[in-house]
Amino acid sequence: MNSNLPIGVFDSGVGGLTVAKEIMSQLPDETICYFGDTARVPYGNKSQETVIKYSRQIASFLLDQKVKAIVIACNTASAFALETLQREVSVPVIGVVKPGARSAAEVSKNGRIGVIGTEGTVRSGLYGTYIRELRPEVQVFGQACPLFVPLAEEGLCNDEVTMLMARRYLAPLLEQGVDTIVLGCTHYPLLRGVVGHVAGPNVTLVNPAFETAKDLKELLTSRGMCAESGRTPEHRFYVSDGAEQFRAFANSILPCEMIETDAVTVKVFA
Amino acid sequence: MNSNLPIGVFDSGVGGLTVAKEIMSQLPDETICYFGDTARVPYGNKSQETVIKYSRQIASFLLDQKVKAIVIACNTASAFALETLQREVSVPVIGVVKPGARSAAEVSKNGRIGVIGTEGTVRSGLYGTYIRELRPEVQVFGQACPLFVPLAEEGLCNDEVTMLMARRYLAPLLEQGVDTIVLGCTHYPLLRGVVGHVAGPNVTLVNPAFETAKDLKELLTSRGMCAESGRTPEHRFYVSDGAEQFRAFANSILPCEMIETDAVTVKVFA
Repeated sequence: MNSNLPIGVFDSGVGGLTVAKEIMSQLPDETICYFGDTARVPYGNKSQETVIKYSRQIASFLLDQKVKAIVIACNTASAFALETLQREVSVPVIGVVKPGARSAAEVSKNGRIGVIGTEGTVRSGLYGTYIRELRPEVQVFGQACPLFVPLAEEGLCNDEVTMLMARRYLAPLLEQGVDTIVLGCTHYPLLRGVVGHVAGPNVTLVNPAFETAKDLKELLTSRGMCAESGRTPEHRFYVSDGAEQFRAFANSILPCEMIETDAVTVKVFA
Repeated sequence: MNSNLPIGVFDSGVGGLTVAKEIMSQLPDETICYFGDTARVPYGNKSQETVIKYSRQIASFLLDQKVKAIVIACNTASAFALETLQREVSVPVIGVVKPGARSAAEVSKNGRIGVIGTEGTVRSGLYGTYIRELRPEVQVFGQACPLFVPLAEEGLCNDEVTMLMARRYLAPLLEQGVDTIVLGCTHYPLLRGVVGHVAGPNVTLVNPAFETAKDLKELLTSRGMCAESGRTPEHRFYVSDGAEQFRAFANSILPCEMIETDAVTVKVFA
């Protein structure tokens, strides 16, 4: 296998760029081949069956692009489709939920952990399952925050409206005395300022994007799959709809050198 | 043709139920066959090409259900796909944009009209085009309100957060001195209280759902296609994902006798 082949990263839309950004920062030699399913976003309120079907189609597209590994940079798809893809796909597949869960299990002191995410991620209870595999005594409290994604996509990351919603969403978790909150949706790192402000200094925020990039690095290293060092990777971005809108959002969150990168609209589904 | 055949009504999701509700109220003998594309909602930020493709697939599904006419109960799909469907489909097709535009042109006294809707509807400028066909001197001001749909779907129709956003979205229109605002998205009638409060008593709100049901009545009457009077229609509801979630929302906005109606998940796309 050519170790300079790209890493496939996919998400329901633009949110997974926060994961791509962490990979670029922690693994600067690796090329990213990103797919955002902008035609079918959001996944958070879709059924497991539908999310698995979409994830299969995207994995197949990424394999056509000759990726050496796949990162599911979407919490809902990680929760619903990781095991299916790991079983069916010929390259290593990692999701964002397990790394986030491991980190939360490590950092919580009082064993009370909050998980915020989409309806689908929270309903799946998968963060809790993984966290309790590592620390069975931990109590996990889930809270869906359905308005956080549209607020982030509207650029209202530091807005009073977002602050108001954050106070409402986080209140039940803070009442439970959590000392750790998992940002269980790829958009949420963009709202980290507001969430951190509302949660206060005694609560640690866990960013699964950061942990996932760390896991990816470990995986590539242990299997001797790291790209040659010192290369200048040419990242590629594909979306299922609206390349222009995607570009604008990507430019607002990726490091500056990405600004010039073109996004291409492709159809992964019939 | 059997005049008791159903009326096909489709939308990107649940919002079109506000149109279905108006049809039920103004045409109580007609059977509705509703399709909500909940797997691919929202349409508002998708490209014209994609929205046309989806609309064709849904029209084909509705024709398989033997509908006698099709109502596009989605502003974005009406703006993007009405002419295509009217050309290609064997039964009459009406959208929500033309009836809403006509009503706005009729009620505005000062000739300054605001249109609020999704990004796609506002960008299409179609309300303005239709309004100016009737009253060329009218000035039309568009304003996308991307957070209104998620706010309505979260049930925050009379919430302070919605009020805050409404003040921001409507400010530019009110500064322009509009005396009429078109609720150019099927969800917006649910936010009518907040929008009306912010707009004030001197601004008339136009609800295209109401006007569309009126147009449908006229169409059926003029073509002798009305269902027999005094029947008890058995409405049918289909969605492309998440029938249960759809039912809950439908129950919250449709007249009570609809509460028992089952929604069925079908796949209209490959």
